[in-house]
Amino acid sequence: MKKIKTYIPGLDEMLKGGILQGRNILLSGPCGSGKSTFAMQFIYNGVMKHGEAGLYVTLEESKEKLYDDMLQFGLDLKKAEQVGKFHLIGGPIASLKTYMEKVDANMTHIIKEIEDVIKEHKIKRVVVDSINLLTMLLKNDEERRKALASLCNSLSTLGCTTILTSETKEGSMDLSRYGIEEFIVDGVIVLYLVRQGSKFVPGITIRKMRGSDHDKEIRVFKITEKGIVVYPTETMFADI
Amino acid sequence: MKKIKTYIPGLDEMLKGGILQGRNILLSGPCGSGKSTFAMQFIYNGVMKHGEAGLYVTLEESKEKLYDDMLQFGLDLKKAEQVGKFHLIGGPIASLKTYMEKVDANMTHIIKEIEDVIKEHKIKRVVVDSINLLTMLLKNDEERRKALASLCNSLSTLGCTTILTSETKEGSMDLSRYGIEEFIVDGVIVLYLVRQGSKFVPGITIRKMRGSDHDKEIRVFKITEKGIVVYPTETMFADI
Amino acid sequence: MKKIKTYIPGLDEMLKGGILQGRNILLSGPCGSGKSTFAMQFIYNGVMKHGEAGLYVTLEESKEKLYDDMLQFGLDLKKAEQVGKFHLIGGPIASLKTYMEKVDANMTHIIKEIEDVIKEHKIKRVVVDSINLLTMLLKNDEERRKALASLCNSLSTLGCTTILTSETKEGSMDLSRYGIEEFIVDGVIVLYLVRQGSKFVPGITIRKMRGSDHDKEIRVFKITEKGIVVYPTETMFADI
Amino acid sequence: MKKIKTYIPGLDEMLKGGILQGRNILLSGPCGSGKSTFAMQFIYNGVMKHGEAGLYVTLEESKEKLYDDMLQFGLDLKKAEQVGKFHLIGGPIASLKTYMEKVDANMTHIIKEIEDVIKEHKIKRVVVDSINLLTMLLKNDEERRKALASLCNSLSTLGCTTILTSETKEGSMDLSRYGIEEFIVDGVIVLYLVRQGSKFVPGITIRKMRGSDHDKEIRVFKITEKGIVVYPTETMFADI
Amino acid sequence: MKKIKTYIPGLDEMLKGGILQGRNILLSGPCGSGKSTFAMQFIYNGVMKHGEAGLYVTLEESKEKLYDDMLQFGLDLKKAEQVGKFHLIGGPIASLKTYMEKVDANMTHIIKEIEDVIKEHKIKRVVVDSINLLTMLLKNDEERRKALASLCNSLSTLGCTTILTSETKEGSMDLSRYGIEEFIVDGVIVLYLVRQGSKFVPGITIRKMRGSDHDKEIRVFKITEKGIVVYPTETMFADI
Amino acid sequence: MKKIKTYIPGLDEMLKGGILQGRNILLSGPCGSGKSTFAMQFIYNGVMKHGEAGLYVTLEESKEKLYDDMLQFGLDLKKAEQVGKFHLIGGPIASLKTYMEKVDANMTHIIKEIEDVIKEHKIKRVVVDSINLLTMLLKNDEERRKALASLCNSLSTLGCTTILTSETKEGSMDLSRYGIEEFIVDGVIVLYLVRQGSKFVPGITIRKMRGSDHDKEIRVFKITEKGIVVYPTETMFADI
Repeated sequence: MKKIKTYIPGLDEMLKGGILQGRNILLSGPCGSGKSTFAMQFIYNGVMKHGEAGLYVTLEESKEKLYDDMLQFGLDLKKAEQVGKFHLIGGPIASLKTYMEKVDANMTHIIKEIEDVIKEHKIKRVVVDSINLLTMLLKNDEERRKALASLCNSLSTLGCTTILTSETKEGSMDLSRYGIEEFIVDGVIVLYLVRQGSKFVPGITIRKMRGSDHDKEIRVFKITEKGIVVYPTETMFADI
Repeated sequence: MKKIKTYIPGLDEMLKGGILQGRNILLSGPCGSGKSTFAMQFIYNGVMKHGEAGLYVTLEESKEKLYDDMLQFGLDLKKAEQVGKFHLIGGPIASLKTYMEKVDANMTHIIKEIEDVIKEHKIKRVVVDSINLLTMLLKNDEERRKALASLCNSLSTLGCTTILTSETKEGSMDLSRYGIEEFIVDGVIVLYLVRQGSKFVPGITIRKMRGSDHDKEIRVFKITEKGIVVYPTETMFADI
Repeated sequence: MKKIKTYIPGLDEMLKGGILQGRNILLSGPCGSGKSTFAMQFIYNGVMKHGEAGLYVTLEESKEKLYDDMLQFGLDLKKAEQVGKFHLIGGPIASLKTYMEKVDANMTHIIKEIEDVIKEHKIKRVVVDSINLLTMLLKNDEERRKALASLCNSLSTLGCTTILTSETKEGSMDLSRYGIEEFIVDGVIVLYLVRQGSKFVPGITIRKMRGSDHDKEIRVFKITEKGIVVYPTETMFADI
Repeated sequence: MKKIKTYIPGLDEMLKGGILQGRNILLSGPCGSGKSTFAMQFIYNGVMKHGEAGLYVTLEESKEKLYDDMLQFGLDLKKAEQVGKFHLIGGPIASLKTYMEKVDANMTHIIKEIEDVIKEHKIKRVVVDSINLLTMLLKNDEERRKALASLCNSLSTLGCTTILTSETKEGSMDLSRYGIEEFIVDGVIVLYLVRQGSKFVPGITIRKMRGSDHDKEIRVFKITEKGIVVYPTETMFADI
Repeated sequence: MKKIKTYIPGLDEMLKGGILQGRNILLSGPCGSGKSTFAMQFIYNGVMKHGEAGLYVTLEESKEKLYDDMLQFGLDLKKAEQVGKFHLIGGPIASLKTYMEKVDANMTHIIKEIEDVIKEHKIKRVVVDSINLLTMLLKNDEERRKALASLCNSLSTLGCTTILTSETKEGSMDLSRYGIEEFIVDGVIVLYLVRQGSKFVPGITIRKMRGSDHDKEIRVFKITEKGIVVYPTETMFADI
Repeated sequence: MKKIKTYIPGLDEMLKGGILQGRNILLSGPCGSGKSTFAMQFIYNGVMKHGEAGLYVTLEESKEKLYDDMLQFGLDLKKAEQVGKFHLIGGPIASLKTYMEKVDANMTHIIKEIEDVIKEHKIKRVVVDSINLLTMLLKNDEERRKALASLCNSLSTLGCTTILTSETKEGSMDLSRYGIEEFIVDGVIVLYLVRQGSKFVPGITIRKMRGSDHDKEIRVFKITEKGIVVYPTETMFADI
């Protein structure tokens, strides 16, 4: 099976080569742990280093803010756009207010819109940031599970490798908001932000990765001016 | 009473010979603890080492992904299929999207479908992976309990030995999602994934096994390239 | 007041002679702690050692499985049946599927059925295994409490000494599922299964026993090939 | 203000003389901590040592069982009855089954019945054992609070000194089931049953006693063959 | 801004002079921590030492009981009444039973009644003991918040300095029952009752006091025969 | 991107220059941690030191109280008002009582009112104190999220830099009341109030700040007579 490199420094080593093509990965972590940066590096690196078309679906940020924010980590989305391979759903042309109401009307519309963009632009890498806001729109766990399974199945069938971000509750050990998201995906990567004294120390682990061997320890990462950098041989906690 | 060998290395020693024929076992564990691999080894070994027809019901993975994933552990499902004794419900012919809607319509349909496959192919070993998604479709604990009791009773009556997987909440001590699944089954095997420093260490214990003596300690297991291997004489924690 | 011997080795010593005749006892404990074995020993010993007719009501197991399972502990239910004093409600003649629907229809039916069997066969010892499944069928705490009070009152009036088993949530300190069952009964016996290192160690205590003095410490018990054996002078934890 | 002696050995010393006449006391504690014995001693001692008429309202036990149980502690209720000053609501003449249905119909009926007995027999001491079952019959906290306030007000107006028992959840720190009962009463006495090693050690404290000074430490008590005996100068835990 | 002295020994020192005139203070603490005594001292001292008219609204106690109870702490409410400056809402003229029903009918009635008494008697100090029972009457958090904001606004506009008592759940860290009461008030004073060994040790802290500097440590207080006495220079816990 | 100075001593150093213009910041902390003072300093400093028009929306305090309270910290709002650049929504002209009912009627009215004031007075800095009361008015998480996203989007589009205060539950680790507020904003600043012995020690950390590097430790701050002062090089806890 073919593996897709994330090109996030140190991560592909933990993944023993990358993510299996066509798989859905849940990226889980608390507020401010770097989920959006991680996810954007995955798309951006695909476009700039590999020539693979990427789609970033955001329900949290406007295009302007996102573009500004990512510059901080050397991710120049205007440049990626000019290459013709970076695509965004959720920006201000479809203004947030209007967009919300559309989503509200029918969940399948947003899946349809994603599918259309994928087919039209031959997208290979997809990010949905975050899955929390999508699932919040649905009435119950059964609805959430059906919508997520439908989305994931559709993305895999179209050959896309996908990262779905999930913000976890402060101080909890949950992997997702509703406790069902991790069933549907093929892999789970967890970002930690652990208080040690007065510091919040970031850590990363691969909790599940169907069909692929992977590192099983909690490793250190840093958010630098080049984005996320993983240290695949440094452990977060001393061993007992 | 006749015991069915799992052929999972080390496990039959913990089980003092295997699982009683016709019994239902709940296999409980957190995300990424190896439940699907464990369950597939049980089916695959039945087919390849014992010539027993097996049925794997999945509501989480497509056939393609499952086949790919299991190759990693030396479980060649295409080969098992060619032997004519490996059967799968939940694959892409009945596409996930369509399948979900059918399940939604009536829970008894899926039980009927399982019964039909069992009778037609003289299935001896069954896996339902996972029971979480089945129970999530039902409205309340009474409905869940009736459906599960009906399914388990039906499988036992048909002479099948069954493993039902149950994903537990991260960091909880629950044995199942709704806290009723463990009442209905004949046995409960628990997989642990305990953080020790920066490592996640896997452990296994037999928590209940009606009608059969069994090992009562938490033992070490590893997920190797040959699948799950249990170390039936090594304990997970030092004794107090 | 007359005390009924359980004949469970060591337990009658803890109970200072046995259970008061006509009383209802809640037997509480986690999954796999030996509640069914304990309860069946109480019935079986009554039949075989004391010539007292016994009734075992199960909503969890089929007759075949139950008979097979109990043989493991030297409890030969076929022999007890031939003596003419062992009775079972919940077996396969009233198949589980059908039975469930009948229960669903009206809770008072099952109480009526129990009363009829008691009167016809002059039952002296009754077990309901488990009470969880009965209470789960009812809509709210008030319904549950009324049904349980009605059942307990009816059994006491008929002169039966009763054990109601209650499976507690893994890792909780609850005595019952809804937190009301312990109000209605005359006594509460608790089975523990405490992890110590990699072992699960069984313990037993008498938490309440109206009208009767009793041992008040947590004692050790073992599940042997002769069933439950209590060590009434060994304490589970070292004293502080 | 006049104080009513409980005559429970050691308790009146903690209460600096007794309970203020006409007040409502909540007696809170877990299953098996001795609440019913405590409450019955209060009534029985009133009748036998002080010539005060007492009323015991039970929704948990039949008259026969209660009479039998209390004999164990030297409380001979038949004798108290013959004195003509011991009264019981909840016994088998109004059988439990029928009684429940009557309660169900209208909560004010039971308050009315209690008032009638108090007036007819010039009752001075009242016990309601337990308040949990009364409050469980009501729909929400507002209903519960109104019914309890109404009952307590009525009992105080009639000059009765009252003990309301409240069974607390195993292992919790709650003072009552719904967290409102303690607002309405004039005083709260708490019984503890604390595990120390393999023992359950009983303790007692006075948590609130409006209008009256009282001991503020957790004291030791024992359940002896003469009922509850409090050791008002022995503390339960070593001081820090 | 003018500060109102509480005249509770030691407290005005913690408050750096007293409470700002016209402000609403939440007095939070567990059962039996002395909230009513604290609140009554505030009213009584206003009347007797300062000649300020005071209103005490109680939904928990009858006038008779309250008068009796407060005598224990040297608070002679009959004398305060004779001075013509002490007023009470919630006593037996409007009997509790009737009163409850009136409240039930319309929450604005009770606010209106309080306003009328304030205007008629030129009340300067108000106590509502407790706010729990008022908020419990309302359907949801929005209703509760509106009613409380309306009450607090009305009292401030009329120039009254107010203490609202709030009973917190045993063993919790909550400041109020619904978690919204502390938003609406201008200040929060917390009473603690901390178990140390077998003793319950009282402590007091000022958690919030808009517009006014204040002591920020947990201080010791005692409930003496002269009521609450605060030790404003003694800390409750040793510093780390 | 342009950064807006808060002029709160020490904070701009933690923020590496200030807050990005046009961004929404959640200011989270428990009762009495100084959120309102912090937020008002942000507005006041903008007006007095930078000549930027500011809008303070309060749903908790009347204008009179707020003006009085802020004087304590040297924030003279009358003076700021005379400068013609300080604006307030929620004061007594639109009396609290009336205002609440208006809000109740339609959430979009309050957003509209804020937008009108911003446009008319060319507001650059906005505070909503607190967001808890706004979100409490809405029915469910989806409604809350839509209203917040709409408000934040509108404020960003109008070029305003905004602080939304959020009171967290005592003793919890939550960042907001409903656990969704932190998704919608661009940054999260957390105020702590940690008990150390008998003291409550204040601390501050920047948990998330999209598009901007920032200090990542928990720093000490004090509430002085000049308002909040941050010590950007002192850590709150000793490092492990």
